[in-house]
Amino acid sequence: MQLNNFKSVLDKYEVIFFDAFGVLKNYNGLIPGIEETFDYLNRTGKDFYVVTNDASRGPEQLAESYVRLGVDIVTPDKIISSGMLARDFLENKVRKGTVAYVGTEASAKYVETADLRTLSINDLDLDDVDHITALVFLDDEGFDWNTDLTKTLNLLRKRNIPVIVANTDKTYPASQNRLSIAVGALAKMIEDTIGRQFIRFGKPDPQMFIFAYQHIKDYPDVNKRDILMVGDTLHTDILGGNKFGLDTALVLSGNTQAQDAEVRIRSTGIIPTYICTSAVVE
Amino acid sequence: MQLNNFKSVLDKYEVIFFDAFGVLKNYNGLIPGIEETFDYLNRTGKDFYVVTNDASRGPEQLAESYVRLGVDIVTPDKIISSGMLARDFLENKVRKGTVAYVGTEASAKYVETADLRTLSINDLDLDDVDHITALVFLDDEGFDWNTDLTKTLNLLRKRNIPVIVANTDKTYPASQNRLSIAVGALAKMIEDTIGRQFIRFGKPDPQMFIFAYQHIKDYPDVNKRDILMVGDTLHTDILGGNKFGLDTALVLSGNTQAQDAEVRIRSTGIIPTYICTSAVVE
Amino acid sequence: MQLNNFKSVLDKYEVIFFDAFGVLKNYNGLIPGIEETFDYLNRTGKDFYVVTNDASRGPEQLAESYVRLGVDIVTPDKIISSGMLARDFLENKVRKGTVAYVGTEASAKYVETADLRTLSINDLDLDDVDHITALVFLDDEGFDWNTDLTKTLNLLRKRNIPVIVANTDKTYPASQNRLSIAVGALAKMIEDTIGRQFIRFGKPDPQMFIFAYQHIKDYPDVNKRDILMVGDTLHTDILGGNKFGLDTALVLSGNTQAQDAEVRIRSTGIIPTYICTSAVVE
Amino acid sequence: MQLNNFKSVLDKYEVIFFDAFGVLKNYNGLIPGIEETFDYLNRTGKDFYVVTNDASRGPEQLAESYVRLGVDIVTPDKIISSGMLARDFLENKVRKGTVAYVGTEASAKYVETADLRTLSINDLDLDDVDHITALVFLDDEGFDWNTDLTKTLNLLRKRNIPVIVANTDKTYPASQNRLSIAVGALAKMIEDTIGRQFIRFGKPDPQMFIFAYQHIKDYPDVNKRDILMVGDTLHTDILGGNKFGLDTALVLSGNTQAQDAEVRIRSTGIIPTYICTSAVVE
Repeated sequence: MQLNNFKSVLDKYEVIFFDAFGVLKNYNGLIPGIEETFDYLNRTGKDFYVVTNDASRGPEQLAESYVRLGVDIVTPDKIISSGMLARDFLENKVRKGTVAYVGTEASAKYVETADLRTLSINDLDLDDVDHITALVFLDDEGFDWNTDLTKTLNLLRKRNIPVIVANTDKTYPASQNRLSIAVGALAKMIEDTIGRQFIRFGKPDPQMFIFAYQHIKDYPDVNKRDILMVGDTLHTDILGGNKFGLDTALVLSGNTQAQDAEVRIRSTGIIPTYICTSAVVE
Repeated sequence: MQLNNFKSVLDKYEVIFFDAFGVLKNYNGLIPGIEETFDYLNRTGKDFYVVTNDASRGPEQLAESYVRLGVDIVTPDKIISSGMLARDFLENKVRKGTVAYVGTEASAKYVETADLRTLSINDLDLDDVDHITALVFLDDEGFDWNTDLTKTLNLLRKRNIPVIVANTDKTYPASQNRLSIAVGALAKMIEDTIGRQFIRFGKPDPQMFIFAYQHIKDYPDVNKRDILMVGDTLHTDILGGNKFGLDTALVLSGNTQAQDAEVRIRSTGIIPTYICTSAVVE
Repeated sequence: MQLNNFKSVLDKYEVIFFDAFGVLKNYNGLIPGIEETFDYLNRTGKDFYVVTNDASRGPEQLAESYVRLGVDIVTPDKIISSGMLARDFLENKVRKGTVAYVGTEASAKYVETADLRTLSINDLDLDDVDHITALVFLDDEGFDWNTDLTKTLNLLRKRNIPVIVANTDKTYPASQNRLSIAVGALAKMIEDTIGRQFIRFGKPDPQMFIFAYQHIKDYPDVNKRDILMVGDTLHTDILGGNKFGLDTALVLSGNTQAQDAEVRIRSTGIIPTYICTSAVVE
Repeated sequence: MQLNNFKSVLDKYEVIFFDAFGVLKNYNGLIPGIEETFDYLNRTGKDFYVVTNDASRGPEQLAESYVRLGVDIVTPDKIISSGMLARDFLENKVRKGTVAYVGTEASAKYVETADLRTLSINDLDLDDVDHITALVFLDDEGFDWNTDLTKTLNLLRKRNIPVIVANTDKTYPASQNRLSIAVGALAKMIEDTIGRQFIRFGKPDPQMFIFAYQHIKDYPDVNKRDILMVGDTLHTDILGGNKFGLDTALVLSGNTQAQDAEVRIRSTGIIPTYICTSAVVE
């Protein structure tokens, strides 16, 4: 397995898409040394975006989390999240009524609009569901799994409404040795049980990448060949980036470890353009 | 769709296997009129068994639930449950050590043996897992889904041990209009997330039918052609019965409703030998 | 089930995306009366596109097929096919070398570029595969399934290269009562067998809708709310249109028949904005 | 990874179940040295059976293939094949009429009975299908995939009949470096396309193991603990053996290679009781 120098790779592209977790951050805070990368992006004026499967908060709150870690160049306009796609869908396709949500109050706040109210599955009364126009899965926190997942199932048996999954990830790292179950896994369980088709947003789906593409500063005057997707996960970042037509760099600082990378690439057939130790510019 | 008279069907067979829920019982107690069927079985001396996906209790406790409803001919030796298969597996293949379980204390009690202790996932300490020799999913109650399903996932990341799913059902009826999520759906979510192969017991798996077959009074002197499987669910009772070589009767008193039966048979390709309104002998 | 008048629906939108098979055409030629719709589109100057899962020919050849049926307003620029996406991917991501293809010579011709040669799986020598840089599934015709599908499998065991499926459909209608197996089903069999991740183009994938959206005359000055997707298949046309944020009209002239529509909508949870008998303007 | 001596393992068991391909035979003939194992079984009088996913021929023909390789102790009564289960099902559940088959004439001959005629899918006339009472997938040879798989699909659209898959394997080795697509993969493609539930026979399904168990000489006086299943494939031989309650030995002479064994056991969670280089007694 040939490793590429991340700085040399970076220099070939005008726009960089970064996955967040495992690339820029981990359960501890920033990936050690990643400040160098932010400095380099700042110095060179390279356009970059954080493209993340996250619907737990809006882009402002996601950006704030970087400020708290001492990074000030990840401003809200640099954030592209699956939650933003879910919000768009609700605003443009569902438009009005009450959206029941699975998640925290903070996650729901972001998807509210003038015409769309939200209601936690926790507060939903199954005998009063006629006004519910959609269901959205936002976060794995903020509700009681024992009672509220069952309530979710029964809501869908009563109402044939659009169901939106705003984060398709199945797990996320909670600490060095522990994973947490993400809302994508809970949504999949309900989907399998009810047998209906949910609407999912998040990498590797191309809609996430077109959304990011349309947000870049010089759009549409940037060729896809000049964009690099940097991620730590073959099935989301690399598969999605490849399919959308971008070059891709797999970094070994998160989900994919150095000793497994070659086997996984061979067994999945998901082939990154480059493999780098991390996204740190040295 | 031609409906058959249940009594006429019954009369053609020597041994009857009944599914429990939706056939003999429902959320309210006994299926109205089913006492007639028990009387008829008693009078005619026909051999019968209750073949059920249930690991929440042992056969004694399951039999007691019939006594409480005023039925005394469903004795423990008439009960064949998926929990019994799980117990057999643990006793014969795992043999010793501590089995972590997802379920209630009552469900765990039944799978304990002289050499096998059990430990609720609720009480498990993730830093002390070296003595855990297997994990078994028994019931959807008795633990906190938010914290303990995540703990289950992390246990499996630390220990490559056999995982047994003692009830493969995804839902069960909680009342006339409500379903509950069964332990089979929770186990499937963990299995999909970790990517390992769990060992599942329950209809439609043939092992359940073999087990029942070997328990019949005159085994092995009964031909499979003389056994009838009666159930309300195409994907478990009818598919499993058919595959094992039994004749099958679909009853319309539970999961499969009269107006849907024909469409479902056509779309699934699961074809019962008979269709009857219910298992009530009139 | 409330049926909508197709003309009234049409009048609400500026741009119309039509699925081809089951909407404009069938195995016999044009859907009876659809000429009225083409006239109406012509008279009103409404912008429209044919958005089709088809990689058997290029847009010029696909447009010609309408001319042969007496329709001259479906010019090549009105055609958006999954084959066009596959061509884009090969040109921009694979770029050079020899692409092995499963399909006819005509289908391959369209994906060739100055730097990309093509080679039929039929002509491929398994002992000389080092120059193969990608594999693409284009059509179910043009090769011997017995020998060449096995050859395809063995090519992929020797070379870890991108695999592109240029039409995800599993079947297509061959006559009033017969279906044919489409290349999407063959590709899925190979993918399941080898266990790798293929790159698929075609509805319901949003990339198909993005591609169509970017081809409309007044792009980007058309709001998605002013675009209607018209299709006969819930799982491709309607699901994909909905997810991309378009309003959708299900027509009952193809895959979905009047008597099944309501049941299928309820059981899949895929909900069209409108249901119309056909796409014929009366 | 600790390797066990095969002879020492063998000595602990009274009855041995062997997978055929990759354990006793390969594409070249016998596994080198396996004659020693047959001698040892013969000398010690240990009861053994060949438990194989194969429906291409009956047990007599399968036994003959060993005679041709110079082994005379694999008599027809030592062979347990998935084809035998399919035959049983047809005889007992379908009973009469004409069974359409996908496979060779030789494979069909074995499933014929006095009341069941067979008809090759190749010879089937789609306009004359009312007498067809079942469809069975037997072999990947003997028919034209291009035309006959489509015919199979259309037969099932006209007739809702039981469909039996008599060998669930997806591939088999054709030579040292080439795999062939097995009939299990073709059946799965048709099943996915039509959306119905087929009836499958073959390891890892427990029905295969109960069938073998019931064939052993001293049945039912042999405890499952005294039976060893020897196989080269985790997902069929080892998973199925484990679930049925047998001890299992993974050999590294076929599908699972020495360098991959540990990773695969960890990633699948399918844990053999023993790992041996091969089934050769040294």
